[in-house]
Amino acid sequence: MIEVALIGGGNMAVHLAAALASSKFCHLRQMLVRNTSADVVVPSGTQRISDYRELLPSDLYIVAVSDKAIAEVIAAIPYQDAVVAHTSGMTEMMPSSRHRHAVFYPLMSFSAKRAVDFRHIPICIEAGSEKDEQMLSQLASSLSDSVFRVSTQQRKSLHLAAVFANNFVNQMYLQAKIVCDDHQLSFDMLKPLIAETANKMMDLDPEEAQTGPARRRDERTIDGHLQLLEREEQADIYKRMTKLIQQNG
Amino acid sequence: MIEVALIGGGNMAVHLAAALASSKFCHLRQMLVRNTSADVVVPSGTQRISDYRELLPSDLYIVAVSDKAIAEVIAAIPYQDAVVAHTSGMTEMMPSSRHRHAVFYPLMSFSAKRAVDFRHIPICIEAGSEKDEQMLSQLASSLSDSVFRVSTQQRKSLHLAAVFANNFVNQMYLQAKIVCDDHQLSFDMLKPLIAETANKMMDLDPEEAQTGPARRRDERTIDGHLQLLEREEQADIYKRMTKLIQQNG
Repeated sequence: MIEVALIGGGNMAVHLAAALASSKFCHLRQMLVRNTSADVVVPSGTQRISDYRELLPSDLYIVAVSDKAIAEVIAAIPYQDAVVAHTSGMTEMMPSSRHRHAVFYPLMSFSAKRAVDFRHIPICIEAGSEKDEQMLSQLASSLSDSVFRVSTQQRKSLHLAAVFANNFVNQMYLQAKIVCDDHQLSFDMLKPLIAETANKMMDLDPEEAQTGPARRRDERTIDGHLQLLEREEQADIYKRMTKLIQQNG
Repeated sequence: MIEVALIGGGNMAVHLAAALASSKFCHLRQMLVRNTSADVVVPSGTQRISDYRELLPSDLYIVAVSDKAIAEVIAAIPYQDAVVAHTSGMTEMMPSSRHRHAVFYPLMSFSAKRAVDFRHIPICIEAGSEKDEQMLSQLASSLSDSVFRVSTQQRKSLHLAAVFANNFVNQMYLQAKIVCDDHQLSFDMLKPLIAETANKMMDLDPEEAQTGPARRRDERTIDGHLQLLEREEQADIYKRMTKLIQQNG
């Protein structure tokens, strides 16, 4: 068993702490939450601390904080030779002479209110040495069935792809909801379609699954939709997406 | 039991035929597929025909063909007094003196390869008389737990909302896949995130669920993403979506 300390108190930190606490490969000894008044779920058997001076020597420090805080947090860890892994998709591995830097990036969007099954979450790892990469790989495999060694460039690309597959998709859900709200329709009516649209991706490629008026170049329907769209920004995004679909075949 | 004939051979027609065949409220007596060589799954107990002259008198004719063929198909039905319902989201109910016009619109995207559970599919109905609307409502309720009487305007708005929630969402999946392909990454890595993003909509509003660099105005990450995007149309849609997310709060 390796000793692990986790630094952070956001959604990523809380979900990761719960997963680490049930791992047979590690012991999550400490969780450092800088904000002492934050309401954070800390696993039983894990000590909650708020000061870097309370950090005990560990095999691994996982830094699950916002991108802009990472450098400052890492600098504050008072053990020079420790492995320090951040959980960010877009941040460099940050090699320095002070620590053994690494990355432990779960490819998922975490919400406070929703439980997740870590076994299905892809974990992307990167380290400065083969030995550290192996340790992280063993740890990741104890949490998830889906572990990948990726380069910094690949990790950043995954983060970008996730913006399309998650943030932009969610924004499309919001635009659909606005159309419903504007016409006294319940967004609930779209939920089976939303579920099916995502479920299709488990079996089909997005190229195969693409349907609709843009794909079949049905100008009458496209014109009808544009007439219904009173909000300028919606008409604009409708036209852009229609063009994009038509460019892709 | 009412007697029903279905006209059409596409995905909508095939899935609807399967559902109608198991309804206790109707008997799907005939399925008219104009293309005699088309490989169409016709329920057992339903006669496949290809000529309008073979159509028997029925209580209801459901016209599940492409939008542009609807008027022609309806004109060819040789029974003046029948209820004729089309399944289109964007087509007028088409009142005429020849038939009792109606709409039977399942709000779903059907694929040839995927089974669907009709009980969860919202069915939107509209008819020219209370009596016909009641008959369609009873039929719809025999197939689905989710039946709505909607106006033409509402139905068109639902169709438009579905373009955002289905077609445009799928296009975002495709853009994510292109990013993966461009960087030698498997699209499979995004599938748990795609599933979770849709699952969130079952519990959360899209406003609440919106996360990401655009939402938190993280300019460094946005710039990093734009540097990774070599394809002009992807950079363009990325900027548009970022702006849209920021306009919405």
